[in-house]
Amino acid sequence: MNDAATSLDALFRPGSVAVIGASRQARSIGNTLLKNLVGQGYTGTVFPVNPAAASVHSVKCYPDVGAIPDALDLAVIAVPAARVPGVIEGCAAKGVKAVCVISAGFGEVGPEGAAAQARLLTVCRRHGMRMLGPNCMGLLNAEPALRMNATFASTFPRPGQVSFLSQSGALGVAVLDLAEDLGLGMRMFASLGNKADVSGNDLLSYWEHDEGTRVVLMYLEDFGNPRKFIPIARRITRTKPIVCVKAGRTVEGGRAAASHTGALAGADAAVDALLEQTGVLRVNSVREMFGVAQALVACPLPRGPRVAILTNAGGPAILATDYLVAKGLTLATLSEATQGALRTALVPEASVGNPVDMVAAAGPQEAARSLELLLADPGVDLVLTIYVPLSTNDPLEVARALFATPQGAREAKPVLSVFLAREPLLEAIKRVGAAQNPIYSHPEDAVLAAVNLLRARALRDDDLGASVRVPVAGTRAGARLAAAPASGWLAGAQALALLEDYGIPVVPTRAVADLRGLAVAARELGGPLALKLDGDAFLHKSDAGGVALGLEGPAAVVAAAESMARAAEAHAPGAAYGFLLQRMAQPGTELVLGVSTDPVFGPLLMVGLGGVYVEILNDVRFGLVPLTPTLARRMLRRLKSFPILEGARGAKPVDLEALEQALLRLSQLVEEHPEILECDLNPLLARPDGVEVVDARVRVRR
Amino acid sequence: MNDAATSLDALFRPGSVAVIGASRQARSIGNTLLKNLVGQGYTGTVFPVNPAAASVHSVKCYPDVGAIPDALDLAVIAVPAARVPGVIEGCAAKGVKAVCVISAGFGEVGPEGAAAQARLLTVCRRHGMRMLGPNCMGLLNAEPALRMNATFASTFPRPGQVSFLSQSGALGVAVLDLAEDLGLGMRMFASLGNKADVSGNDLLSYWEHDEGTRVVLMYLEDFGNPRKFIPIARRITRTKPIVCVKAGRTVEGGRAAASHTGALAGADAAVDALLEQTGVLRVNSVREMFGVAQALVACPLPRGPRVAILTNAGGPAILATDYLVAKGLTLATLSEATQGALRTALVPEASVGNPVDMVAAAGPQEAARSLELLLADPGVDLVLTIYVPLSTNDPLEVARALFATPQGAREAKPVLSVFLAREPLLEAIKRVGAAQNPIYSHPEDAVLAAVNLLRARALRDDDLGASVRVPVAGTRAGARLAAAPASGWLAGAQALALLEDYGIPVVPTRAVADLRGLAVAARELGGPLALKLDGDAFLHKSDAGGVALGLEGPAAVVAAAESMARAAEAHAPGAAYGFLLQRMAQPGTELVLGVSTDPVFGPLLMVGLGGVYVEILNDVRFGLVPLTPTLARRMLRRLKSFPILEGARGAKPVDLEALEQALLRLSQLVEEHPEILECDLNPLLARPDGVEVVDARVRVRR
Repeated sequence: MNDAATSLDALFRPGSVAVIGASRQARSIGNTLLKNLVGQGYTGTVFPVNPAAASVHSVKCYPDVGAIPDALDLAVIAVPAARVPGVIEGCAAKGVKAVCVISAGFGEVGPEGAAAQARLLTVCRRHGMRMLGPNCMGLLNAEPALRMNATFASTFPRPGQVSFLSQSGALGVAVLDLAEDLGLGMRMFASLGNKADVSGNDLLSYWEHDEGTRVVLMYLEDFGNPRKFIPIARRITRTKPIVCVKAGRTVEGGRAAASHTGALAGADAAVDALLEQTGVLRVNSVREMFGVAQALVACPLPRGPRVAILTNAGGPAILATDYLVAKGLTLATLSEATQGALRTALVPEASVGNPVDMVAAAGPQEAARSLELLLADPGVDLVLTIYVPLSTNDPLEVARALFATPQGAREAKPVLSVFLAREPLLEAIKRVGAAQNPIYSHPEDAVLAAVNLLRARALRDDDLGASVRVPVAGTRAGARLAAAPASGWLAGAQALALLEDYGIPVVPTRAVADLRGLAVAARELGGPLALKLDGDAFLHKSDAGGVALGLEGPAAVVAAAESMARAAEAHAPGAAYGFLLQRMAQPGTELVLGVSTDPVFGPLLMVGLGGVYVEILNDVRFGLVPLTPTLARRMLRRLKSFPILEGARGAKPVDLEALEQALLRLSQLVEEHPEILECDLNPLLARPDGVEVVDARVRVRR
Repeated sequence: MNDAATSLDALFRPGSVAVIGASRQARSIGNTLLKNLVGQGYTGTVFPVNPAAASVHSVKCYPDVGAIPDALDLAVIAVPAARVPGVIEGCAAKGVKAVCVISAGFGEVGPEGAAAQARLLTVCRRHGMRMLGPNCMGLLNAEPALRMNATFASTFPRPGQVSFLSQSGALGVAVLDLAEDLGLGMRMFASLGNKADVSGNDLLSYWEHDEGTRVVLMYLEDFGNPRKFIPIARRITRTKPIVCVKAGRTVEGGRAAASHTGALAGADAAVDALLEQTGVLRVNSVREMFGVAQALVACPLPRGPRVAILTNAGGPAILATDYLVAKGLTLATLSEATQGALRTALVPEASVGNPVDMVAAAGPQEAARSLELLLADPGVDLVLTIYVPLSTNDPLEVARALFATPQGAREAKPVLSVFLAREPLLEAIKRVGAAQNPIYSHPEDAVLAAVNLLRARALRDDDLGASVRVPVAGTRAGARLAAAPASGWLAGAQALALLEDYGIPVVPTRAVADLRGLAVAARELGGPLALKLDGDAFLHKSDAGGVALGLEGPAAVVAAAESMARAAEAHAPGAAYGFLLQRMAQPGTELVLGVSTDPVFGPLLMVGLGGVYVEILNDVRFGLVPLTPTLARRMLRRLKSFPILEGARGAKPVDLEALEQALLRLSQLVEEHPEILECDLNPLLARPDGVEVVDARVRVRR
């Protein structure tokens, strides 16, 4: 166990806790904290601190932390912000190992608060004291040996193997309630607050080494340090699933950006890419997060998407089928042997195809035997049982039978159980089996959990490979970028040349300053030519009459350039410009490649088919730099329009290898040159014999 | 009130009920039915019928229905299938007005059962006795004056304004439980069973005239008679919302079909089109159905999509924002006045933008005042409150304050309330306000309800207009179809001519039987020409070398035809064929129009952009015949690729009016000629100056 991890023991496994700001006033924070610690059976010793009271909740009070006779592992601080610095000094003097600052009024309220927070941190660091918060809602450890609830949550969760960190305190408290409703056992919980000292990454590292934590849940609103998060999360997810709700999908979505790629890449695309590349399972809601957590602690991961449904009621099974197919799972095809055995086990009205409908009268024996048969069928990866309690059987007996049967088979395949029951029956069913069996009251929740189990398996087994470095003319590119303006867009020819430095094929191009050079360049290039105006004032060339295509021979080029020069003068009088002369590209499938830079996550690569696909259908994919060959291939294959690249309607497939290479080289370019903020390769033409960039824009800032 | 409606009074409002098959054996169906009727306070008189018992649940038993001294409105029958015919005869002889047959073993088990079911129906019809079922799970009327629970459901719902019909009995029973969990009051419930007599349409008509029913819910697995359903549902939805879960989205999806359109149109597309065209709100799950029902009974419909969120906890509000934006709602922009007043009403740390975060400490006064301000803001269409119960306030007081405040404003705008609380607090909150306030425990459920409220408003106000008949060469088309083979594909030229009969523009085309006629036709048509092989054996023309394009002059045409004839002979020796000679079409945007015929719903029109759009992106829209101009326009506008038709990237828009006309005329063609089973217009080229069909296939069966 590393140092960071050990040092959190004082927070999560304290032998003694002081509550500073303990209060006799009902509903106050200091009162509730003490009530929860004492009333819910914390196994260590609690010391209330309040100069104005003799006792709180019958426990002797101390005027200040210094007056406490015993050594202290943890102090939970709930006093007004102005008094926190003094209290922290007192804790440091007393030798308290860790503090949890509930008090608000620090970094979240502006520069003054941030300064005060920084001073707290300085004191903590000087004395080797860890700090959770400030502005947090506390922490909890449900291990039976500890039973510490240092939060406002009135519910003490049943002990389990799920640890949960929340960036929203109120949400964290509410979801402890939800977990209990679902029968989900918890291990530890912490509200992060302002993350002055203890960060999400610290908690991940701590739980990585906590044997009792099998699944980690996170509710995040931002990433403090994604570069630190990536290696930690990637390591943990090989052995323990991490499930994350990241809020704010849409809030930052509308950022203005000058490039095509920037406009399409909301910050959320970066979050999606980051989480997938680190093996973290991203879900959309707390309910969905808890639903999959129930399954992750109790079940193996499924080997595939083939679901068998066992039910005593047709309707809910049909609805579940609709939903699971819509979510990408499949209905397993049961073997003849399985169907034959089911026919023997069930009444004649039963339907032994999948979904298996045992019909309403089915009791415990039928349910248990059918489940056994379905688990034994090699064509089944996962079983979903949907039971509607009817008067004709004791539903608790059915639940017991389902839970008791074939433990061996259950260890190989997940069984998710839906009981369309209400309280108190549902609670009784959970008491019978919630520890070993994920139990749901809505088929949709169970299907979503199944989908997420399959995603969790894919993420765990996902081998992204290593990023590969190709030999490039890096020195030339460096010199080229050094010669560019410190901030702004590279001239078109320079942008193309930069790509060529990194081995990305571009259409043969000449940058020519004036009319005189054009005739020479036209002769050199040969063939039909394209002429383009090149200059800062003409970024949208075609608007300025700045593109002429299919020019044959030097005379045609010069004539076009003369007319272009007049148009340029009219469009932006006096603006500087030059010309780009290019050999006309062979027709191909238009793609757009691009890079945008996220302030938190760094460069983000984009690929999409060009033209209407990218603009109207928004069919683009993103990947974080550095790409690996596996990721590059995946970005392409996940495009909805990928069949076009593969050769739809009898066309030849484009050179996918060359396309992947272009993505990888672009990734390497921006990784090696962080001064590149944005670029668009638009269009890049893909053909069966290779790819070629026709136009490119690059923005730099040093 | 019409006759059909009156006659269901005996089912839903009986003064006396016989339970035939009443049993003393606990958990048996006959026992449970009696227990529910007697124990849950049915206000009429119950007569158990069982020759072997003196009493059941303390109520005197009769040996048969004839022995009952009183007149009977309803008999609920739960005896083995073989005994049902005799019991029905007895009921008829006794003058029972309606029967509900729980017993299974009829139409659902094969031809013999179906015959037995038909015989039951004959007896019922002869005696004017209505029958619910057989194979159903009973019915319920929660009106306080009745309190009749003739189902197996152990829960008696709280009285309310929602009536629910279910085609799945078990599901129906389970969801009565769910309704109670959600605090949703019910009016009537019926399980339809085999629908031998009483159909879903009968229940809809009955509830249309029931003043206590304000919202109708349906769980359906199929439509018995959509042609009868359409006018009933369309009429009802003008005044009472109908919400429907239709199961089996994916089950029938894979039907094989010969045409493009047929393959793309699963039965589910027809269901979607049908429900929308009749104003029925289709939802995906029972949970979603009940969520919107809660809001529909308690709230007005929102005027627009602008949502204000009021919360005491940031995290859940951000998650709700993500979800509502993803679902197409928007976050309201609060006026300066509203924000100023909120600033005065709330603590300084509160955030007065939208979402309004009152912060954790907010109590009843702050909540009530803030809600009032948000409802008064003209930029807000709907308010979502999200409250996390924290120790610092009494959540029940906050709920009371939220529910008590501005009733006037609430009558104008919906307020959906989320309490992230668990039982028993949640139940207490529901007791305080569930009748007048939709209460949710998950923000996602409330957001989905808001989305569905907005859809319900659009459906209620939707004016599809009337279908318009255009003058067409109908006689010519009739003669043409009469001359076609009784079953099979029309020859290509005939298919195009048929479209022309209905005024759909087609490329100038000549059908020529042999080489000699081609030269003449080529001269007549003029311009560059396309030559196509036309014959049953060559439906996929290009596979058989059967297309030659850009032919200039008669000689080129004849030469191409000679080579085509050789290829045809090689491809299908001896098969009959002719030639189609067409003027080459001007380039345009390729579309596919088509018709497939659903066995239940009849003809279904499809439109999509051609080529990769239809094949890879599945970007197609469906409409049921007869289309109205509004529907035709909507089909086009809902295509994801519609911006291409409107003129993306500086292109001219295509002639949308002509495109709508083509859809309407196609609708009229298949409506007036039901022998047309399938057709593809592929491609139809759309240009700024009109549209033109290049190729068409039509399949008929008389």
